[in-house]
Amino acid sequence: MKNRKTRLFNRSSFQHLLTMKDYIDAVEQAHLLQAENKIIPTNLIHANAPEGEYHIKTGGLLGERAYYGLKANGGFFSNQQKHNLPNILGIIYLSDAHNAYPLAIFASSLISKMRTAAATAVAAKYLKPSAPIRLGVIGYGSQAEAQINALVSVADIECIKVAGRNKEKLANFVQLMQEKINIPIETDDIKTTCLSSNVIVTCTPSTKYFVERDWIQKGTFIAAVGADSPGKNELDPYLMVDSKIVADIKSQVIKVGESQHAINKNLINPSSIYCELGQLITGAINGRKDENDIFIYDSTGTAIQDVAAAAYIYEKLKDDPSIKCIDFFA
Amino acid sequence: MKNRKTRLFNRSSFQHLLTMKDYIDAVEQAHLLQAENKIIPTNLIHANAPEGEYHIKTGGLLGERAYYGLKANGGFFSNQQKHNLPNILGIIYLSDAHNAYPLAIFASSLISKMRTAAATAVAAKYLKPSAPIRLGVIGYGSQAEAQINALVSVADIECIKVAGRNKEKLANFVQLMQEKINIPIETDDIKTTCLSSNVIVTCTPSTKYFVERDWIQKGTFIAAVGADSPGKNELDPYLMVDSKIVADIKSQVIKVGESQHAINKNLINPSSIYCELGQLITGAINGRKDENDIFIYDSTGTAIQDVAAAAYIYEKLKDDPSIKCIDFFA
Repeated sequence: MKNRKTRLFNRSSFQHLLTMKDYIDAVEQAHLLQAENKIIPTNLIHANAPEGEYHIKTGGLLGERAYYGLKANGGFFSNQQKHNLPNILGIIYLSDAHNAYPLAIFASSLISKMRTAAATAVAAKYLKPSAPIRLGVIGYGSQAEAQINALVSVADIECIKVAGRNKEKLANFVQLMQEKINIPIETDDIKTTCLSSNVIVTCTPSTKYFVERDWIQKGTFIAAVGADSPGKNELDPYLMVDSKIVADIKSQVIKVGESQHAINKNLINPSSIYCELGQLITGAINGRKDENDIFIYDSTGTAIQDVAAAAYIYEKLKDDPSIKCIDFFA
Repeated sequence: MKNRKTRLFNRSSFQHLLTMKDYIDAVEQAHLLQAENKIIPTNLIHANAPEGEYHIKTGGLLGERAYYGLKANGGFFSNQQKHNLPNILGIIYLSDAHNAYPLAIFASSLISKMRTAAATAVAAKYLKPSAPIRLGVIGYGSQAEAQINALVSVADIECIKVAGRNKEKLANFVQLMQEKINIPIETDDIKTTCLSSNVIVTCTPSTKYFVERDWIQKGTFIAAVGADSPGKNELDPYLMVDSKIVADIKSQVIKVGESQHAINKNLINPSSIYCELGQLITGAINGRKDENDIFIYDSTGTAIQDVAAAAYIYEKLKDDPSIKCIDFFA
């Protein structure tokens, strides 16, 4: 057991060392392995605490190296106010799936954010229209920024509109983003943003849909990022009927993704889901062939994305002497 | 977030600082809280890897302080031989259940072993016969040693017999134990060990029972420790019919504990389980009243025991400057 130690990655230990492209490659690789059945099955536990809730997501990858891991996240929405802590926080645990050795433990937030945005970018590679991209984003949180950065790295974007409920937060977000990227970006209302965009990202915590069926043009690609638990809802369920739905994990989107609502209303059934992201990557299923199709990427997030990103960080930095480590078995 | 850091406990950081009594107190407190419904519900995930299996157990305690945690353990039974690693290994993660802050991470093995033995001791306090204790132990692994130490700390033990399949390992175990404790201890066969003991612990990985109904005397207390997953079996299912079964967690023992076999054979039904350990602690249900009763403690292990022991260690050592720590959010 000499030289065996568990690496400990706090946020600053890796945040400047990975590009968005690194996360995109890691997430694409994870979904490729999933489509090839080279994974340890994903699973999740939800537990309610008096002041918040815990989500445990588990899964593993059986690629050139084998990893199994989990994310243990809390969602405590008074944290910022009451404890000066992030509202969503936790760790990612990575083990060697050949022997369960604890390889590394990471702060979860940045990886969660980046892998979610990276998954949208992977989906966009296969599903975006070929015309110049007019991007519309509904939401102005840190996920909105990550989504824009991810899409910029895989698509030529002509212009960006951002919409959302709180006009002050919206204006601040757009101003800050304009300082960071060299694409015209402006605020607008949700309807105009939808009507004038051919790629749309929804990334809000909404439980009532705000994108109407009639606002979506033929040929649009929508990444539905917000809905990842029962009740969360951003898109008109009737829009799902007229679109091709690509799931990150089919078994998950029908329960906790945007698709849950159309299924619950009997507008579609689970077999109506067009395919999983991994099937686009292997080529088993075609991405966009028809410029008139509306594609919706139903993104609920999965441990294999976390594990892929965590493994990437681990392999890149495991021999860096500045990374803290501990021999748990000493 | 000043001064907030996650403590990292490797084995040597706490192994000499906690007595068996500390673990017993922690486990008793956990089951008391469970009986009072002051827990965050327990749950588990099982996942098969190509060379082993993972168990994730989760749960929380809502006592004077609130904790939520999990154990992520691997069972890889070629580890020792192939990788010079423990066959069972992993971590315990402890968070503050008021805000999900990661309080601490621990090597899991020692805590697992000690909390399992401690649970037997708690059960024995309520269920052991009043006569002098003649202890019989089937099994000679590290759990057998912990079980003996736990029972010694709550009962006056007159003599100990130990039985098991491999005679050489058995003899070695008994010799080593005799050097550590001041109670006569000897090897014997399983039948004689059962026939001559009034407290019996079974702690083997067996999948076929080896304790016959007829070998158990009236008034005996049995801790059935080995069976904690589907298929594992140490006791004759007919013995369960004639005994009062106390579960650590009722919903768990009927699926993965010793009780599963009697239930699967329709010899008992889930409502035949006498009570849970916590109900003995609160006094809602009586422990031993009749010296003729056979009591079986069906021990499957639960995250609330891990969390209780981990929280005890955390609170005792959090300000010790020798404990490593990291600010994951820096």
